[in-house]
Amino acid sequence: MSYEARRNRLCQWMLEEQVQLAMFEHTEGRQDPSIRWLTGHPSDALLFLAADSTGAVQALLVPWDLNLALCYAEVDSIIAYSEFERRPLQALKGALSYFHVPLGSRVEIPPVMPYPLFLRYVEAFMDFEILCRNGGIHEEAEGLRAVKDPQEIQIYRTVSAITNELMEEIEGHIRSGRLATEDAVALYLESACRKRGCEGVGFEILAAGPKRSFGIHPFPAYTAGEFATAGLSILDFGLKYEGYTSDVTLTFARAPLSRAQERLLALTERAYRLALAMVEDGVAAKTIAAAVDGLFAHAKKRMPHALGHGIGLEAHESPLLGNRTDNDWVLKSGMIFTLEPGLYDPTHGGCRLENDILLTESGPEVLTQARIIRL
Amino acid sequence: MSYEARRNRLCQWMLEEQVQLAMFEHTEGRQDPSIRWLTGHPSDALLFLAADSTGAVQALLVPWDLNLALCYAEVDSIIAYSEFERRPLQALKGALSYFHVPLGSRVEIPPVMPYPLFLRYVEAFMDFEILCRNGGIHEEAEGLRAVKDPQEIQIYRTVSAITNELMEEIEGHIRSGRLATEDAVALYLESACRKRGCEGVGFEILAAGPKRSFGIHPFPAYTAGEFATAGLSILDFGLKYEGYTSDVTLTFARAPLSRAQERLLALTERAYRLALAMVEDGVAAKTIAAAVDGLFAHAKKRMPHALGHGIGLEAHESPLLGNRTDNDWVLKSGMIFTLEPGLYDPTHGGCRLENDILLTESGPEVLTQARIIRL
Repeated sequence: MSYEARRNRLCQWMLEEQVQLAMFEHTEGRQDPSIRWLTGHPSDALLFLAADSTGAVQALLVPWDLNLALCYAEVDSIIAYSEFERRPLQALKGALSYFHVPLGSRVEIPPVMPYPLFLRYVEAFMDFEILCRNGGIHEEAEGLRAVKDPQEIQIYRTVSAITNELMEEIEGHIRSGRLATEDAVALYLESACRKRGCEGVGFEILAAGPKRSFGIHPFPAYTAGEFATAGLSILDFGLKYEGYTSDVTLTFARAPLSRAQERLLALTERAYRLALAMVEDGVAAKTIAAAVDGLFAHAKKRMPHALGHGIGLEAHESPLLGNRTDNDWVLKSGMIFTLEPGLYDPTHGGCRLENDILLTESGPEVLTQARIIRL
Repeated sequence: MSYEARRNRLCQWMLEEQVQLAMFEHTEGRQDPSIRWLTGHPSDALLFLAADSTGAVQALLVPWDLNLALCYAEVDSIIAYSEFERRPLQALKGALSYFHVPLGSRVEIPPVMPYPLFLRYVEAFMDFEILCRNGGIHEEAEGLRAVKDPQEIQIYRTVSAITNELMEEIEGHIRSGRLATEDAVALYLESACRKRGCEGVGFEILAAGPKRSFGIHPFPAYTAGEFATAGLSILDFGLKYEGYTSDVTLTFARAPLSRAQERLLALTERAYRLALAMVEDGVAAKTIAAAVDGLFAHAKKRMPHALGHGIGLEAHESPLLGNRTDNDWVLKSGMIFTLEPGLYDPTHGGCRLENDILLTESGPEVLTQARIIRL
């Protein structure tokens, strides 16, 4: 689907909601990959969308780096952020003028806008109705992003294949002893993924040897310390291809293992199988998450994080697969998300098993081949 | 200075402002390294500070990962986030009860709180006065963080020394031809910094060969493509040591260079010398930034970013060295910040020269030795 087609999917919504202008922001503190999804521009920028009654959306991009935008952005117009003194309020003023937005119009700004800054928008644009809300156009875009289109699914086939290849290579090199430290494993991935055309990694690689695997996210992310020695080691990584990230976690379990460690592994694998068996179109995400939490509770264990999450242009995006009462996500065909049960023990270490699942009309397709690897 | 001593520096302020409870948040979308600065805990968490009239602050940490907090956090109490159903509003409710905060008290939440979420706090805590504002305790903490204490300056001496060593090694390996691609340079740094005890890098390494150096921040950050071939290549990186990041940029200029490229280099070096000569205690940051912008404007060039920024637990923190009318930062002894003039041309490529400056009572001390390296 072209960027323009994606933008036009928002037009009907804008017309119904009578939103004349919508502002998206992708900056250091408030990142919104919807800008890349809507324009192709992969870097800091503001994006203004103006709907007209013909059903078309006009897009004005205000990039931090004009040169980069000229290479990547497919939009109707580009004006450098420096033309607006690098101030978002000035840029909004410019966009209102550029699109001749009538006084009194509804103008939507991102729902992540900090309250004190929101007050400045309201004050600066008293002649307009400033909207800053949940359930607005930004959430609408996130909802559309949660169901992948055919091009996106094709990208996921590619990045999953690269991810699977590299997992196989890593396993081989760990078995042979060539990769024996956390940083060796991580840097192997950083290098190999770029040689295969990836943009890089989707998030900081987490590699934790047996002494550090008790952390959900080890700190630091990886060190020069040993990896995959006796006990439980966790490797959590994602590769980024054309903007889209995979997200997998391998656990390496090297003998001798204690009974407690064997139990963590068995429970995690059981939880993973249970979750996968429950994935289908129309099921509430929290039902699956609650089942896994219940399985662990029955074993007197507790998973300190959610069961999974959507992936895409962000490493964590919709849908959330978490057992919270306010989690209303329902799984739908076209969604791509992780399942990642894990258990962590300060003494015995941790284990997690995470794969990427594409939900198709005929059921879940497991895109990646992460597993608990016994050494 | 101990974490407790840092927290107590905020007590007087809390008493004067009659803030009984302050909440800090370090989560995926809203990161606040003040939590690490105040507790040592390096990962996701909420932090609640309660002031009492004796001048002491009580600190309750609500970490996402309890095991990690037990290793790192120096606080009065720790309660796992999962005890609050992983909901910030529940955690605040718990903290109010834990500290027996009287009804009607002033409770400060982060100023980056999104407006729709702010409304939920106000609704949920009608019996308290919820503050969400600029100029509050979070900014106070940022202001304190901008002036480094002796331990922090000592950490900067260490991380600067490692940064300088690695720049020298990189230059040698580039001259010898051992490092010839962007990813080779980046992965050398990723590996070498950890072997020297760094936590990792402070931000994604940016390495752009001559074809990509026109971008302020190249996209992708680094590739398998060639580096330091004829023309201008930029390497921008920071090493993170005990939480604190350095931030330097080298430009590699390999002959033959066009007159236009020579001019970019000469102007950038001149701007750097001008800026450095103006650094002194009491000078307004924007005065220096304006002088550099003026120098470039005189040469019919324009720098598309700010002149520099504070560094510390974040790669970008206070003070800002930017030429904006609302930039009120005044340089003070104890501050550590970058100077990083740069120019970027879609045809000729870009160059940037960035070093870390410690402002001492006797003037600027250049901690790092980045330069434009002619090959």
